[in-house]
Amino acid sequence: MSDKTTATFTSAFKKLKIRPHMKSFTMGADHKFTLESGRTFGPITVAYETYGHLNAAKDNAVLIPHALTGDSHCASHHPGDEPGWWEGLVGPGKAIDTERYFVICPNVLGGCQGTTGPASIDPETGRPYGSRFPVITIRDMVRVHKALIDHLGLERVHMVIGGSMGGMQTLEWGVAYSDITDGIVAIATPGRSAPQAIAYNEVGRRSIMNDPNWRGGDYYDGEYPSDGLSVARMVGMITFQSDASMWNKFGRQLMNASEDEIYDLSTQFQVESYLCYQGEKLVERFDANSYVYLTRALDLFDLGRGRGGFREALRLITVPTLVIGISSDILYPTYQQKEIVDGLREHGRFAEYVEIDCPFGHDGFLIEIAQMTEALTGFADKVDRLRRSGA
Amino acid sequence: MSDKTTATFTSAFKKLKIRPHMKSFTMGADHKFTLESGRTFGPITVAYETYGHLNAAKDNAVLIPHALTGDSHCASHHPGDEPGWWEGLVGPGKAIDTERYFVICPNVLGGCQGTTGPASIDPETGRPYGSRFPVITIRDMVRVHKALIDHLGLERVHMVIGGSMGGMQTLEWGVAYSDITDGIVAIATPGRSAPQAIAYNEVGRRSIMNDPNWRGGDYYDGEYPSDGLSVARMVGMITFQSDASMWNKFGRQLMNASEDEIYDLSTQFQVESYLCYQGEKLVERFDANSYVYLTRALDLFDLGRGRGGFREALRLITVPTLVIGISSDILYPTYQQKEIVDGLREHGRFAEYVEIDCPFGHDGFLIEIAQMTEALTGFADKVDRLRRSGA
Repeated sequence: MSDKTTATFTSAFKKLKIRPHMKSFTMGADHKFTLESGRTFGPITVAYETYGHLNAAKDNAVLIPHALTGDSHCASHHPGDEPGWWEGLVGPGKAIDTERYFVICPNVLGGCQGTTGPASIDPETGRPYGSRFPVITIRDMVRVHKALIDHLGLERVHMVIGGSMGGMQTLEWGVAYSDITDGIVAIATPGRSAPQAIAYNEVGRRSIMNDPNWRGGDYYDGEYPSDGLSVARMVGMITFQSDASMWNKFGRQLMNASEDEIYDLSTQFQVESYLCYQGEKLVERFDANSYVYLTRALDLFDLGRGRGGFREALRLITVPTLVIGISSDILYPTYQQKEIVDGLREHGRFAEYVEIDCPFGHDGFLIEIAQMTEALTGFADKVDRLRRSGA
Repeated sequence: MSDKTTATFTSAFKKLKIRPHMKSFTMGADHKFTLESGRTFGPITVAYETYGHLNAAKDNAVLIPHALTGDSHCASHHPGDEPGWWEGLVGPGKAIDTERYFVICPNVLGGCQGTTGPASIDPETGRPYGSRFPVITIRDMVRVHKALIDHLGLERVHMVIGGSMGGMQTLEWGVAYSDITDGIVAIATPGRSAPQAIAYNEVGRRSIMNDPNWRGGDYYDGEYPSDGLSVARMVGMITFQSDASMWNKFGRQLMNASEDEIYDLSTQFQVESYLCYQGEKLVERFDANSYVYLTRALDLFDLGRGRGGFREALRLITVPTLVIGISSDILYPTYQQKEIVDGLREHGRFAEYVEIDCPFGHDGFLIEIAQMTEALTGFADKVDRLRRSGA
């Protein structure tokens, strides 16, 4: 195994952002990894950032798996750093206190931020995987994170904390690795993807696949399927927000136009302009194939697969668990978090449910810092007490 | 004015379905019509079907404006007829009883089912309007329906009953023509489109406009923008249903595949297959430009425009009004119907709210026939009593 910096990130995704403090290693003695599908795949490069310091007892590691379009940069931690996607929660003195915890934030398998994904070079062909990339699952992502934990020489993880797709990884971590973990926090996530969530993802994928530039996924030497990815993102952005938050942010305001320009087809409402802008922005930093493969992993997510069903699978999570729901979440509505907690309690597990009351929809876990801080610190204290009491 | 049959339907939309009992007329003495935008436009052909018979007093007409992709065929009414989109509610002995009422169901301005729309031939060029078609509004649609009522020689309309986009037309009818109407029923509609609804529509339009075959809207001599319209429909179908109805109908069931085929990118969940099928089905019967123009009309819908705002506009509706909401509607949630009723009551109007309790989402108004029947017949009785009492 090798722990190198940016030199190993060979990607055909031209917009790959190499973070200055991103580290990486290549998995496995033989560089091969057996996926949940049974397919052997590799080598897998794992990119990650760390925040804070590992203590002498090596028992203060906090793993943060990221959401669909997230990355390893959850917070700024060096002079001149850009803010991260969880800047309000991760840092010195914050809820996930980097003066206390050794925070590990890996880029996800199948993504486009450094860890191996569809734009990576396939050693068998010397060309980007593209359509040859295998279907991966949340379980695969989690096993890759475990390999990272092993690589870092850790025998325990104090907590795993993740929202959305990161929450799915957190729950799967709980199923697979409760025995080496002190607590998990799964935020704004289901225990299995609902058909409505699958439906939204399918719209996005279909939009990408309909883009003539997609060419079955093998587009890296040509034009980029920007239009398709952009529309996919627009759908996503709707599901990350709520009717109420859109009223608050946009109402029925027009974009740089007076009321008498509404009869022009090119005049936009602010909400339209915003969505188009968000679509274009994602195109600047995200690979369309990663969108296809990662949303497929979201859809395949089902804690119960091969484990006797959803309720039975929850029995396998023995670690203290906090599940956080967002009151206005339309993508993963709160009944989905509540049924996880109910199921865990049926098996006698220590499980808490906290609802973040806000109008922001799914994105609330990135925005409602005060409520999130209260929930996370309250649970962290309980985990500490439980650990000390040997429960 | 002329009342002809199918001969007048000159359309470049190759999939135009000429219903055997569809009638039409051409509006206006000079065949010109001034749109809400101030633009003069015409001639406008209006296609419609009628059901039942006008009574001697000419006071039993019921007008049914249709929803986005609906048409004039709301029910079968001749031997061999296909079922209509409101078959369960319109017919002899049904809630909208064609033995009692003279039902008029017009095709909408801007659509592609017979009434003038973007695929119609522009007399100035001899070619389809395409990108030259003007932006139209719900108010324009309603004034076209009023011209139809005039054409039929009617001085009063007993009731106007419409759902979704038909509900918007119903409310606008109430604003403009309360004085010649006995009652209106607005179903699953807002009083003004919310930004979230606009957002969904913008995804659909962007998808159509990104289709290389769309060519700015002037595609009638070439390939049809099927892919774009299909994705637009997929988004729409999600918003017409609900998370609960999708669990009931599809769950996480796969399409003709076993569990070990989930690792193939082409394997579909049933919900994905269903959406793709619905997308393809709409392409067979609907014009992409109509989708663009009609959704634009939806977005522009605001009862309050130019009338001192939404609440003030409700003052103009003086006719007894029933507003029906669907408990599980995610497109036009029930707060939107309740605020209409609240506003009407603030102005001292006779307004009732009935909520259809069902898991089907927005489409509930097409599905929950028993509850719809109860609501409609109850209100019809009240309208009769109010009319007899001269209220």
